Amino acid sequence: MSSHQISRYPVPQLADLPQDVRERILAVQEKAGFIPNVFITLAHRPAEFRAFFDYHDALLLKDSGLSKAEREMIIVATSAANQCHYCVIAHGAILRVYARNPLLADQVAVNYHKADLAPRQKAMLDFAVKVALNSRAIDDADFPRLREHGFSDEDIWDIGAIAALFALSNRMANLIDMRPNDAFYLLGRVPRS
Amino acid sequence: MSSHQISRYPVPQLADLPQDVRERILAVQEKAGFIPNVFITLAHRPAEFRAFFDYHDALLLKDSGLSKAEREMIIVATSAANQCHYCVIAHGAILRVYARNPLLADQVAVNYHKADLAPRQKAMLDFAVKVALNSRAIDDADFPRLREHGFSDEDIWDIGAIAALFALSNRMANLIDMRPNDAFYLLGRVPRS
Amino acid sequence: MSSHQISRYPVPQLADLPQDVRERILAVQEKAGFIPNVFITLAHRPAEFRAFFDYHDALLLKDSGLSKAEREMIIVATSAANQCHYCVIAHGAILRVYARNPLLADQVAVNYHKADLAPRQKAMLDFAVKVALNSRAIDDADFPRLREHGFSDEDIWDIGAIAALFALSNRMANLIDMRPNDAFYLLGRVPRS
Amino acid sequence: MSSHQISRYPVPQLADLPQDVRERILAVQEKAGFIPNVFITLAHRPAEFRAFFDYHDALLLKDSGLSKAEREMIIVATSAANQCHYCVIAHGAILRVYARNPLLADQVAVNYHKADLAPRQKAMLDFAVKVALNSRAIDDADFPRLREHGFSDEDIWDIGAIAALFALSNRMANLIDMRPNDAFYLLGRVPRS
Amino acid sequence: MSSHQISRYPVPQLADLPQDVRERILAVQEKAGFIPNVFITLAHRPAEFRAFFDYHDALLLKDSGLSKAEREMIIVATSAANQCHYCVIAHGAILRVYARNPLLADQVAVNYHKADLAPRQKAMLDFAVKVALNSRAIDDADFPRLREHGFSDEDIWDIGAIAALFALSNRMANLIDMRPNDAFYLLGRVPRS
Amino acid sequence: MSSHQISRYPVPQLADLPQDVRERILAVQEKAGFIPNVFITLAHRPAEFRAFFDYHDALLLKDSGLSKAEREMIIVATSAANQCHYCVIAHGAILRVYARNPLLADQVAVNYHKADLAPRQKAMLDFAVKVALNSRAIDDADFPRLREHGFSDEDIWDIGAIAALFALSNRMANLIDMRPNDAFYLLGRVPRS
Repeated sequence: MSSHQISRYPVPQLADLPQDVRERILAVQEKAGFIPNVFITLAHRPAEFRAFFDYHDALLLKDSGLSKAEREMIIVATSAANQCHYCVIAHGAILRVYARNPLLADQVAVNYHKADLAPRQKAMLDFAVKVALNSRAIDDADFPRLREHGFSDEDIWDIGAIAALFALSNRMANLIDMRPNDAFYLLGRVPRS
Repeated sequence: MSSHQISRYPVPQLADLPQDVRERILAVQEKAGFIPNVFITLAHRPAEFRAFFDYHDALLLKDSGLSKAEREMIIVATSAANQCHYCVIAHGAILRVYARNPLLADQVAVNYHKADLAPRQKAMLDFAVKVALNSRAIDDADFPRLREHGFSDEDIWDIGAIAALFALSNRMANLIDMRPNDAFYLLGRVPRS
Repeated sequence: MSSHQISRYPVPQLADLPQDVRERILAVQEKAGFIPNVFITLAHRPAEFRAFFDYHDALLLKDSGLSKAEREMIIVATSAANQCHYCVIAHGAILRVYARNPLLADQVAVNYHKADLAPRQKAMLDFAVKVALNSRAIDDADFPRLREHGFSDEDIWDIGAIAALFALSNRMANLIDMRPNDAFYLLGRVPRS
Repeated sequence: MSSHQISRYPVPQLADLPQDVRERILAVQEKAGFIPNVFITLAHRPAEFRAFFDYHDALLLKDSGLSKAEREMIIVATSAANQCHYCVIAHGAILRVYARNPLLADQVAVNYHKADLAPRQKAMLDFAVKVALNSRAIDDADFPRLREHGFSDEDIWDIGAIAALFALSNRMANLIDMRPNDAFYLLGRVPRS
Repeated sequence: MSSHQISRYPVPQLADLPQDVRERILAVQEKAGFIPNVFITLAHRPAEFRAFFDYHDALLLKDSGLSKAEREMIIVATSAANQCHYCVIAHGAILRVYARNPLLADQVAVNYHKADLAPRQKAMLDFAVKVALNSRAIDDADFPRLREHGFSDEDIWDIGAIAALFALSNRMANLIDMRPNDAFYLLGRVPRS
Repeated sequence: MSSHQISRYPVPQLADLPQDVRERILAVQEKAGFIPNVFITLAHRPAEFRAFFDYHDALLLKDSGLSKAEREMIIVATSAANQCHYCVIAHGAILRVYARNPLLADQVAVNYHKADLAPRQKAMLDFAVKVALNSRAIDDADFPRLREHGFSDEDIWDIGAIAALFALSNRMANLIDMRPNDAFYLLGRVPRS
């Protein structure tokens, strides 16, 4: 494991955390095999931790017209636009896993226009990046363009809301200089042993 | 009351909402005298509603080294940078009330550098706007600059986290074209009768 | 009255001004009930004062295909784009008065795309903001777009020339740190007593 | 003489102009040997013509701590920043004449940082371009920087006001697609015969 | 001849250069009547010198669907976008010579949209400037737009490759502060004696 | 091997290429184990191919005060700034190999400010990215800042020239939509078998 600092702020010990926060983290650890740094670093503020992961789960765990891989594409593309070190690396890994594609995350992070994506997915990312970088300019004309690709109005809310949540998340990661776990770099690139 | 549409998405009836959401809204109505549109429009998605207002309350209702007026300054300055119609008008009103100053919100919204603020508050807004617009460039040197003005590291987290939460909020408001209640425009400008 | 400095430069006494300048200022005072700071601060340079207000009157007092409220919309939208404290506050007040609408000025200042405006007025502001921020890109195709909304070529000159005059005015106000009179903040928000 | 159109708007005949406007133009023609297109094209609107040239003369003909060549440098540098075809070509010519330097105007137009200028003149242009492009950020700290180079506060007003006047002028020239006279291109490049 | 420094780096003596580099420079001198500073300043690094001028000759001396004047337009327009002092002045001169037009180079340098160019040439420059400033956004739709103006795919490679080579060249000139020879300023403006 | 198109332009067969170009490509293939797509796609134009790789070799194969890994950092950081799909993926792989560090390339590509780099290397990348994005602003003050970190003037030329060469390379890759070989994605991430 890397010995680099993972946050500008104090990183709590699991044992010192409120029980619900600790249990949430242990559940992730059991599933992932390690504790992603976003959990333990944001646990410095338990009330904000709970709200953040409630928001996250409300958007990313629910059923949606967007596949799980598509939701991760939104996160990677908008986090790259914000140059968020943690989110590009960590969600790039998750995207590789969900899409079962070892190339896609790097492509989306560098320039999603050149990525191996369907037109529907490029339209989705065009809108997500507009929400991320220029939300003041969203207007009625954006909606029929997305509906043409089969997105419902609720799907469009999902695209916008995920981009909005990671607008928050990218800023928090940049604020505390959150460092991704080394484990993310290789995840989804080679067959799991 | 204005007859304009207040959201691009369906606006729920209070009676149709889950009880906890409805009660949260009624409590605000009792205090403010009206239901701010952010409550009723975001209630279209109860799970996200709960997470959003939990996050909001975790940052804005707690004790902090930042006064309540200072927290609203952050919201108005960053929301103006994002040209968020709802947040500038609604939080401008709240800023006038908390600061007991009928001029300050308009000043902060147009150009906070020219506003009647203390140097500490301008340094706070410089950092908040950096989080809002250019979080990739946050670096260690930002922290001593803020500490010189008496901000603790926890205060700096508060500044950054409020800017981050409204990065989300501005994008959601722009996504759904959220319209501020007419009542906000005059609030805090004239003595309450 | 606020005790804040209203200009970085010396502010003349009415008695010390050339007679024509003093009379012009007194006439405004009689009509408005107070002397807007733009008059007394720019009077520091009488020759430029005369040219500025001659230009202003040539565009804003004459008959035009643009209503007086529309001309003020141009000023508020372009001054907001330039973050000019004086012009947004002062002309926001005048817009409220001419449009007999207490909400419109704040809407136009924050994000005119979300304001309660007719399509013709949004097209007008699109062009005005292009003149303000990106005049190098004005081309022949801009003209038929405006003519479709009923603007004559002379009306288009008016739109462009008002945006151009306030390009100058915003820069002068920012140069001298011109402060708006407190009286402007409430003007047009409540019925005149 | 080039047969290209010199304005998007009707160009008046000298004989049809009000006498004072016509005389002002004839006086320029006598001095320059030709009528610069800015005069005849802006004469389409006599009231604005008078105000514009009054403003122009108030800043450019008076005594100032800035030399005439320095004032033209400001015009060329800010007009290049705005990509104003007319102003760069016409005032570039005037700068060559006043500075008795056939290279300087092209240098200032392309990149004034690389031009053969004194440090005082680069500081002057740094401020002028800030007024032209980012006047919202002018602050108290700009003033001592300029005073160190020997500029008085009145000189600083001159720098800012010239940049502000050409903010207007560049936009008007771009609006009407004003074309510079062919004569300007060679002026000041070769000894006058 | 101007006594100004022509590079931040040591400028070699012709006699000290490798023979092939010296001969290449002497051949240019014989043709142009002087040694353009780009040759003698880049000769500081002979291996890079050879590669640069091989690249240059491969694009600019060969037969192409683009005329020699058109190729110089690309250089002037993109070098102006990068504010490259040397390239705008030197290639502006070459453009005047090839196009036999004393006005065109200044027009293209200030704002090519206003230059006396054919629609084909404006389309060519639109694409060249996109390559220069925003190559990440090049997409399939750019190609038919250019083909409509009669450009073959090989012509489009030429446009892009010239813009790409001067992306390099502009950066090298800015790096070493390369100064154009005084002789370029007047070249092509007056009949050659 | 991926079946995606690797260039917008025809891709030559090795057998059809001039002998020197073919041999150069075969030599790379022998060393790397595969033919990087930049070789075979740029071979569409043999004269430009030769100049490009001569330039490349002149900067990247020679002795320098910059290590080979440092030179690749420059390429990855500036190519990420230009969102060049090919260069970030291919040179990211080479950086991992030279630096013997499986994390560094992704860190530099996302946000080099957060990468595990020495202060000397961050100063080097600050300057390289300035050359890539804002070369017009390079000035004398940049040089002592780099010398403080032990860079000689020749090292600074190397930094600038590599950034300049990849300004060209990124634009060519974006022009022809050059696709990186799949092999690059995993190179340097896992021990070579």
